[in-house]
Amino acid sequence: MKGFLITFEGIDGSGKTTQANLLYEYLKVKGFDVSLYRDPGGTPLAEKIREVIMEFSMDPITELLLFESARSSLVWEKILPDLCADKVVIMDRFIDSSMAYQGYAKEINLGTVSILNHIAIRGRKPDLTIILNVNLETALSRIRHKKTKFETPELLKKVRDAYILIAHSEKERDIRIVDANRDKEEVFKEIVCIVEDKLGV
Amino acid sequence: MKGFLITFEGIDGSGKTTQANLLYEYLKVKGFDVSLYRDPGGTPLAEKIREVIMEFSMDPITELLLFESARSSLVWEKILPDLCADKVVIMDRFIDSSMAYQGYAKEINLGTVSILNHIAIRGRKPDLTIILNVNLETALSRIRHKKTKFETPELLKKVRDAYILIAHSEKERDIRIVDANRDKEEVFKEIVCIVEDKLGV
Repeated sequence: MKGFLITFEGIDGSGKTTQANLLYEYLKVKGFDVSLYRDPGGTPLAEKIREVIMEFSMDPITELLLFESARSSLVWEKILPDLCADKVVIMDRFIDSSMAYQGYAKEINLGTVSILNHIAIRGRKPDLTIILNVNLETALSRIRHKKTKFETPELLKKVRDAYILIAHSEKERDIRIVDANRDKEEVFKEIVCIVEDKLGV
Repeated sequence: MKGFLITFEGIDGSGKTTQANLLYEYLKVKGFDVSLYRDPGGTPLAEKIREVIMEFSMDPITELLLFESARSSLVWEKILPDLCADKVVIMDRFIDSSMAYQGYAKEINLGTVSILNHIAIRGRKPDLTIILNVNLETALSRIRHKKTKFETPELLKKVRDAYILIAHSEKERDIRIVDANRDKEEVFKEIVCIVEDKLGV
Protein backbone atom coordinates (compact mmCIF):
# COMPACT_ATOMS: atom_id res chain seq x y z
CA MET A 1 0.00 0.00 0.00
CA LYS A 2 1.36 3.41 -0.94
CA GLY A 3 1.64 6.40 1.39
CA PHE A 4 1.01 6.32 5.12
CA LEU A 5 -2.14 7.60 6.80
CA ILE A 6 -1.92 8.66 10.46
CA THR A 7 -5.04 9.84 12.28
CA PHE A 8 -5.25 11.66 15.60
CA GLU A 9 -8.40 11.12 17.64
CA GLY A 10 -9.69 12.18 21.04
CA ILE A 11 -12.10 14.56 22.71
CA ASP A 12 -11.67 18.32 22.39
CA GLY A 13 -8.94 19.41 24.79
CA SER A 14 -6.99 16.17 24.35
CA GLY A 15 -4.30 17.93 22.30
CA LYS A 16 -4.98 16.45 18.85
CA THR A 17 -4.37 19.66 16.91
CA THR A 18 -1.20 20.46 18.87
CA GLN A 19 0.26 16.98 18.43
CA ALA A 20 -0.74 16.74 14.77
CA ASN A 21 1.05 20.03 14.10
CA LEU A 22 4.13 18.97 16.05
CA LEU A 23 4.31 15.71 14.11
CA TYR A 24 3.81 17.50 10.79
CA GLU A 25 6.74 19.86 11.46
CA TYR A 26 8.92 17.05 12.81
CA LEU A 27 8.42 14.78 9.79
CA LYS A 28 8.95 17.67 7.37
CA VAL A 29 12.31 18.44 8.98
CA LYS A 30 13.15 14.74 8.76
CA GLY A 31 12.67 15.01 4.99
CA PHE A 32 9.29 13.32 4.62
CA ASP A 33 6.75 14.55 2.07
CA VAL A 34 3.88 15.16 4.47
CA SER A 35 0.37 16.67 4.51
CA LEU A 36 -1.83 17.72 7.41
CA TYR A 37 -5.61 18.14 7.22
CA ARG A 38 -8.46 18.58 9.65
CA ASP A 39 -11.71 16.65 9.26
CA PRO A 40 -14.20 18.14 8.53
CA GLY A 41 -12.21 20.52 6.35
CA GLY A 42 -9.23 20.53 4.00
CA THR A 43 -11.08 21.45 0.79
CA PRO A 44 -13.17 24.57 0.09
CA LEU A 45 -16.29 22.38 -0.08
CA ALA A 46 -15.49 20.52 3.15
CA GLU A 47 -14.79 23.82 4.96
CA LYS A 48 -18.18 25.07 3.71
CA ILE A 49 -19.89 21.92 5.00
CA ARG A 50 -18.12 22.44 8.34
CA GLU A 51 -19.67 25.93 8.53
CA VAL A 52 -23.12 24.54 7.73
CA ILE A 53 -22.79 21.90 10.48
CA MET A 54 -21.86 24.62 12.99
CA GLU A 55 -24.62 27.01 11.84
CA PHE A 56 -27.69 24.73 11.86
CA SER A 57 -29.13 22.45 14.51
CA MET A 58 -30.10 19.05 13.13
CA ASP A 59 -30.85 15.41 13.92
CA PRO A 60 -27.90 12.99 14.36
CA ILE A 61 -28.38 11.12 11.04
CA THR A 62 -28.34 14.34 9.01
CA GLU A 63 -25.29 15.51 10.96
CA LEU A 64 -23.52 12.21 10.29
CA LEU A 65 -24.30 12.41 6.55
CA LEU A 66 -22.88 15.95 6.42
CA PHE A 67 -19.69 14.89 8.22
CA GLU A 68 -19.35 12.03 5.74
CA SER A 69 -19.90 14.41 2.79
CA ALA A 70 -17.06 16.62 4.01
CA ARG A 71 -14.86 13.57 4.60
CA SER A 72 -15.64 12.20 1.15
CA SER A 73 -14.62 15.49 -0.45
CA LEU A 74 -11.32 15.54 1.45
CA VAL A 75 -10.56 11.87 0.75
CA TRP A 76 -11.23 12.26 -2.97
CA GLU A 77 -9.53 15.63 -3.52
CA LYS A 78 -6.55 15.36 -1.18
CA ILE A 79 -5.97 12.21 0.85
CA LEU A 80 -6.10 9.59 -1.92
CA PRO A 81 -3.93 11.64 -4.34
CA ASP A 82 -1.43 12.36 -1.54
CA LEU A 83 -1.22 8.70 -0.55
CA CYS A 84 -0.88 7.75 -4.20
CA ALA A 85 2.11 10.16 -4.36
CA ASP A 86 3.56 8.23 -1.40
CA LYS A 87 3.12 11.05 1.10
CA VAL A 88 2.61 10.75 4.83
CA VAL A 89 -0.87 12.15 5.53
CA ILE A 90 -1.68 13.33 9.06
CA MET A 91 -5.34 13.79 10.01
CA ASP A 92 -6.74 15.86 12.86
CA ARG A 93 -9.84 13.66 13.39
CA PHE A 94 -11.15 11.07 10.92
CA ILE A 95 -13.52 8.08 10.82
CA ASP A 96 -13.28 7.22 14.51
CA SER A 97 -14.73 10.64 15.40
CA SER A 98 -17.95 9.69 13.60
CA MET A 99 -18.00 6.32 15.34
CA ALA A 100 -17.36 7.87 18.77
CA TYR A 101 -19.60 10.97 18.54
CA GLN A 102 -22.45 9.95 16.22
CA GLY A 103 -22.27 6.20 16.87
CA TYR A 104 -21.51 5.53 20.52
CA ALA A 105 -22.42 8.92 22.05
CA LYS A 106 -25.48 9.88 19.96
CA GLU A 107 -26.54 6.25 19.54
CA ILE A 108 -26.78 5.94 15.78
CA ASN A 109 -26.56 2.25 14.88
CA LEU A 110 -22.83 1.40 14.75
CA GLY A 111 -23.27 -0.58 11.55
CA THR A 112 -24.77 2.47 9.87
CA VAL A 113 -21.80 4.62 10.92
CA SER A 114 -19.38 1.95 9.78
CA ILE A 115 -20.99 1.70 6.31
CA LEU A 116 -21.01 5.48 5.88
CA ASN A 117 -17.36 5.72 6.97
CA HIS A 118 -16.46 3.00 4.48
CA ILE A 119 -18.28 4.79 1.63
CA ALA A 120 -16.67 8.15 2.42
CA ILE A 121 -13.10 6.82 2.67
CA ARG A 122 -13.48 4.43 -0.30
CA GLY A 123 -12.29 1.65 1.97
CA ARG A 124 -8.84 3.24 2.62
CA LYS A 125 -8.42 2.82 6.37
CA PRO A 126 -5.77 4.59 8.47
CA ASP A 127 -2.41 2.85 8.82
CA LEU A 128 -1.98 4.20 12.34
CA THR A 129 -4.42 5.85 14.73
CA ILE A 130 -3.34 7.66 17.86
CA ILE A 131 -6.05 8.19 20.46
CA LEU A 132 -5.12 10.94 22.90
CA ASN A 133 -6.71 9.83 26.14
CA VAL A 134 -7.27 12.54 28.70
CA ASN A 135 -9.17 13.05 31.97
CA LEU A 136 -12.44 14.93 31.60
CA GLU A 137 -11.30 17.60 34.07
CA THR A 138 -8.09 18.23 32.14
CA ALA A 139 -9.94 18.41 28.81
CA LEU A 140 -12.61 20.75 30.19
CA SER A 141 -10.03 23.09 31.71
CA ARG A 142 -8.19 23.21 28.38
CA ILE A 143 -11.29 24.06 26.33
CA ARG A 144 -13.19 26.29 28.76
CA HIS A 145 -12.38 29.41 26.72
CA LYS A 146 -13.35 27.81 23.39
CA LYS A 147 -16.77 28.03 21.76
CA THR A 148 -17.72 24.52 20.84
CA LYS A 149 -21.00 23.07 19.69
CA PHE A 150 -20.45 19.43 20.48
CA GLU A 151 -18.81 19.13 23.85
CA THR A 152 -21.02 18.94 26.91
CA PRO A 153 -19.44 17.11 29.88
CA GLU A 154 -21.90 14.19 29.51
CA LEU A 155 -21.13 13.82 25.82
CA LEU A 156 -17.37 14.16 26.43
CA LYS A 157 -17.49 11.29 28.89
CA LYS A 158 -19.38 9.04 26.47
CA VAL A 159 -17.00 9.91 23.63
CA ARG A 160 -13.92 9.34 25.76
CA ASP A 161 -15.19 5.88 26.72
CA ALA A 162 -16.16 5.22 23.10
CA TYR A 163 -12.62 5.80 21.84
CA ILE A 164 -11.33 3.14 24.23
CA LEU A 165 -14.00 0.71 23.01
CA ILE A 166 -13.04 1.43 19.40
CA ALA A 167 -9.36 0.82 20.13
CA HIS A 168 -10.19 -2.56 21.62
CA SER A 169 -12.75 -3.62 19.01
CA GLU A 170 -11.04 -2.75 15.71
CA LYS A 171 -8.39 -5.43 16.13
CA GLU A 172 -7.26 -5.48 12.49
CA ARG A 173 -6.16 -1.82 12.74
CA ASP A 174 -3.18 -0.34 14.57
CA ILE A 175 -4.74 1.95 17.19
CA ARG A 176 -2.60 3.25 20.05
CA ILE A 177 -3.94 4.87 23.20
CA VAL A 178 -1.58 7.57 24.43
CA ASP A 179 -1.87 9.17 27.87
CA ALA A 180 -2.47 12.83 27.02
CA ASN A 181 -2.71 14.16 30.57
CA ARG A 182 1.04 14.83 30.50
CA ASP A 183 2.99 17.83 29.15
CA LYS A 184 2.78 18.15 25.39
CA GLU A 185 6.54 17.46 25.06
CA GLU A 186 6.24 14.15 26.90
CA VAL A 187 3.21 13.14 24.85
CA PHE A 188 5.00 14.08 21.65
CA LYS A 189 8.07 12.01 22.57
CA GLU A 190 5.88 8.91 22.83
CA ILE A 191 4.15 9.70 19.53
CA VAL A 192 7.47 10.16 17.70
CA CYS A 193 8.60 6.79 19.05
CA ILE A 194 5.44 5.08 17.74
CA VAL A 195 5.51 6.83 14.36
CA GLU A 196 9.21 6.29 13.68
CA ASP A 197 8.82 2.62 14.49
CA LYS A 198 5.93 2.34 12.01
CA LEU A 199 7.72 4.31 9.30
CA GLY A 200 10.88 2.25 9.80
CA VAL A 201 13.03 5.31 10.53
CA MET B 1 -49.34 2.76 7.67
CA LYS B 2 -50.31 6.35 8.36
CA GLY B 3 -50.28 9.16 5.81
CA PHE B 4 -49.68 8.75 2.09
CA LEU B 5 -46.40 9.58 0.34
CA ILE B 6 -46.52 10.37 -3.39
CA THR B 7 -43.30 11.07 -5.28
CA PHE B 8 -42.89 12.62 -8.72
CA GLU B 9 -39.82 11.60 -10.68
CA GLY B 10 -38.44 12.25 -14.16
CA ILE B 11 -35.79 14.24 -15.98
CA ASP B 12 -35.84 18.05 -15.96
CA GLY B 13 -38.45 19.20 -18.45
CA SER B 14 -40.72 16.24 -17.76
CA GLY B 15 -43.22 18.41 -15.89
CA LYS B 16 -42.68 17.14 -12.31
CA THR B 17 -42.98 20.53 -10.63
CA THR B 18 -46.05 21.50 -12.68
CA GLN B 19 -47.86 18.22 -12.00
CA ALA B 20 -46.88 18.17 -8.31
CA ASN B 21 -48.32 21.66 -7.90
CA LEU B 22 -51.53 20.78 -9.78
CA LEU B 23 -52.02 17.71 -7.60
CA TYR B 24 -51.32 19.69 -4.42
CA GLU B 25 -54.01 22.27 -5.30
CA TYR B 26 -56.46 19.60 -6.44
CA LEU B 27 -56.18 17.54 -3.24
CA LYS B 28 -56.43 20.64 -1.06
CA VAL B 29 -59.71 21.63 -2.75
CA LYS B 30 -60.91 18.05 -2.25
CA GLY B 31 -60.40 18.56 1.49
CA PHE B 32 -57.20 16.58 2.01
CA ASP B 33 -54.55 17.71 4.48
CA VAL B 34 -51.63 17.85 2.06
CA SER B 35 -47.97 19.00 1.93
CA LEU B 36 -45.68 19.59 -1.04
CA TYR B 37 -41.87 19.65 -0.84
CA ARG B 38 -39.00 19.61 -3.28
CA ASP B 39 -35.97 17.38 -2.72
CA PRO B 40 -33.33 18.68 -2.11
CA GLY B 41 -35.08 21.41 -0.12
CA GLY B 42 -38.04 21.89 2.20
CA THR B 43 -36.11 22.86 5.35
CA PRO B 44 -33.72 25.81 5.84
CA LEU B 45 -30.82 23.34 6.18
CA ALA B 46 -31.81 21.34 3.09
CA GLU B 47 -32.17 24.53 1.03
CA LYS B 48 -28.69 25.53 2.20
CA ILE B 49 -27.30 22.14 1.17
CA ARG B 50 -29.02 22.58 -2.22
CA GLU B 51 -27.14 25.88 -2.66
CA VAL B 52 -23.84 24.21 -1.74
CA ILE B 53 -24.42 21.42 -4.28
CA MET B 54 -25.09 24.02 -6.99
CA GLU B 55 -22.11 26.19 -6.01
CA PHE B 56 -19.29 23.63 -5.86
CA SER B 57 -18.10 21.02 -8.31
CA MET B 58 -17.46 17.66 -6.68
CA ASP B 59 -17.08 13.91 -7.20
CA PRO B 60 -20.25 11.76 -7.46
CA ILE B 61 -19.95 10.12 -4.00
CA THR B 62 -19.67 13.48 -2.22
CA GLU B 63 -22.59 14.79 -4.27
CA LEU B 64 -24.68 11.74 -3.35
CA LEU B 65 -23.86 12.15 0.36
CA LEU B 66 -24.92 15.81 0.21
CA PHE B 67 -28.21 14.94 -1.53
CA GLU B 68 -28.82 12.32 1.17
CA SER B 69 -28.03 14.86 3.94
CA ALA B 70 -30.64 17.23 2.53
CA ARG B 71 -33.13 14.38 2.17
CA SER B 72 -32.49 13.21 5.72
CA SER B 73 -33.18 16.70 7.05
CA LEU B 74 -36.46 16.93 5.13
CA VAL B 75 -37.58 13.43 6.10
CA TRP B 76 -36.86 14.02 9.78
CA GLU B 77 -38.22 17.58 10.08
CA LYS B 78 -41.21 17.42 7.74
CA ILE B 79 -42.11 14.20 5.95
CA LEU B 80 -42.23 11.80 8.91
CA PRO B 81 -44.18 14.24 11.16
CA ASP B 82 -46.62 14.99 8.29
CA LEU B 83 -47.19 11.32 7.59
CA CYS B 84 -47.64 10.69 11.30
CA ALA B 85 -50.35 13.39 11.27
CA ASP B 86 -51.98 11.39 8.44
CA LYS B 87 -51.27 13.96 5.74
CA VAL B 88 -50.81 13.32 2.04
CA VAL B 89 -47.20 14.30 1.25
CA ILE B 90 -46.29 15.13 -2.35
CA MET B 91 -42.60 15.14 -3.31
CA ASP B 92 -40.99 16.83 -6.30
CA ARG B 93 -38.13 14.30 -6.66
CA PHE B 94 -37.10 11.78 -3.97
CA ILE B 95 -35.04 8.59 -3.62
CA ASP B 96 -35.35 7.48 -7.25
CA SER B 97 -33.58 10.65 -8.38
CA SER B 98 -30.46 9.52 -6.50
CA MET B 99 -30.76 6.05 -7.96
CA ALA B 100 -31.23 7.39 -11.51
CA TYR B 101 -28.69 10.24 -11.51
CA GLN B 102 -25.96 9.13 -9.11
CA GLY B 103 -26.52 5.39 -9.46
CA TYR B 104 -27.35 4.51 -13.05
CA ALA B 105 -26.09 7.66 -14.84
CA LYS B 106 -22.96 8.47 -12.81
CA GLU B 107 -22.28 4.80 -12.11
CA ILE B 108 -22.06 4.76 -8.33
CA ASN B 109 -22.64 1.20 -7.15
CA LEU B 110 -26.45 0.73 -6.98
CA GLY B 111 -26.20 -1.04 -3.63
CA THR B 112 -24.40 1.98 -2.18
CA VAL B 113 -27.13 4.32 -3.42
CA SER B 114 -29.81 2.00 -2.08
CA ILE B 115 -28.23 1.86 1.40
CA LEU B 116 -27.82 5.65 1.55
CA ASN B 117 -31.43 6.16 0.42
CA HIS B 118 -32.60 3.75 3.12
CA ILE B 119 -30.60 5.56 5.83
CA ALA B 120 -31.88 9.01 4.78
CA ILE B 121 -35.56 8.01 4.60
CA ARG B 122 -35.41 5.84 7.75
CA GLY B 123 -36.89 3.03 5.67
CA ARG B 124 -40.14 4.90 4.88
CA LYS B 125 -40.63 4.23 1.17
CA PRO B 126 -43.09 6.08 -1.07
CA ASP B 127 -46.61 4.68 -1.31
CA LEU B 128 -46.90 5.78 -4.93
CA THR B 129 -44.30 6.99 -7.42
CA ILE B 130 -45.21 8.67 -10.69
CA ILE B 131 -42.46 8.72 -13.31
CA LEU B 132 -43.11 11.35 -15.95
CA ASN B 133 -41.64 9.83 -19.09
CA VAL B 134 -40.81 12.27 -21.85
CA ASN B 135 -38.87 12.34 -25.12
CA LEU B 136 -35.44 13.91 -24.88
CA GLU B 137 -36.31 16.49 -27.56
CA THR B 138 -39.44 17.58 -25.69
CA ALA B 139 -37.56 17.83 -22.39
CA LEU B 140 -34.68 19.78 -23.92
CA SER B 141 -37.02 22.24 -25.63
CA ARG B 142 -38.84 22.80 -22.32
CA ILE B 143 -35.64 23.49 -20.31
CA ARG B 144 -33.56 25.34 -22.93
CA HIS B 145 -34.07 28.68 -21.13
CA LYS B 146 -33.25 27.26 -17.67
CA LYS B 147 -29.83 27.27 -16.05
CA THR B 148 -29.23 23.76 -14.86
CA LYS B 149 -26.12 22.06 -13.59
CA PHE B 150 -27.02 18.44 -14.09
CA GLU B 151 -28.67 18.05 -17.45
CA THR B 152 -26.48 17.39 -20.48
CA PRO B 153 -28.24 15.50 -23.30
CA GLU B 154 -26.10 12.38 -22.69
CA LEU B 155 -26.89 12.37 -18.98
CA LEU B 156 -30.59 13.05 -19.63
CA LYS B 157 -30.77 10.00 -21.87
CA LYS B 158 -29.11 7.76 -19.27
CA VAL B 159 -31.39 9.08 -16.53
CA ARG B 160 -34.51 8.65 -18.64
CA ASP B 161 -33.61 5.02 -19.31
CA ALA B 162 -32.69 4.54 -15.64
CA TYR B 163 -36.15 5.57 -14.46
CA ILE B 164 -37.71 2.88 -16.64
CA LEU B 165 -35.30 0.29 -15.21
CA ILE B 166 -36.16 1.39 -11.67
CA ALA B 167 -39.90 1.09 -12.39
CA HIS B 168 -39.42 -2.46 -13.62
CA SER B 169 -36.97 -3.57 -10.92
CA GLU B 170 -38.58 -2.30 -7.70
CA LYS B 171 -41.50 -4.67 -7.92
CA GLU B 172 -42.62 -4.35 -4.31
CA ARG B 173 -43.36 -0.64 -4.84
CA ASP B 174 -46.17 1.00 -6.79
CA ILE B 175 -44.38 2.90 -9.57
CA ARG B 176 -46.39 4.20 -12.54
CA ILE B 177 -44.89 5.42 -15.79
CA VAL B 178 -46.98 8.25 -17.23
CA ASP B 179 -46.54 9.54 -20.80
CA ALA B 180 -45.55 13.17 -20.21
CA ASN B 181 -45.19 14.20 -23.85
CA ARG B 182 -48.85 15.26 -23.85
CA ASP B 183 -50.48 18.54 -22.75
CA LYS B 184 -50.25 19.11 -19.03
CA GLU B 185 -54.06 18.84 -18.67
CA GLU B 186 -54.10 15.38 -20.25
CA VAL B 187 -51.18 14.22 -18.12
CA PHE B 188 -52.86 15.57 -15.01
CA LYS B 189 -56.13 13.75 -15.79
CA GLU B 190 -54.26 10.44 -15.79
CA ILE B 191 -52.45 11.30 -12.55
CA VAL B 192 -55.72 12.23 -10.78
CA CYS B 193 -57.18 8.91 -11.88
CA ILE B 194 -54.21 6.99 -10.42
CA VAL B 195 -54.10 8.99 -7.18
CA GLU B 196 -57.85 8.88 -6.49
CA ASP B 197 -57.82 5.14 -7.03
CA LYS B 198 -54.98 4.75 -4.51
CA LEU B 199 -56.55 7.10 -1.96
CA GLY B 200 -59.92 5.35 -2.34
CA VAL B 201 -61.76 8.52 -3.30
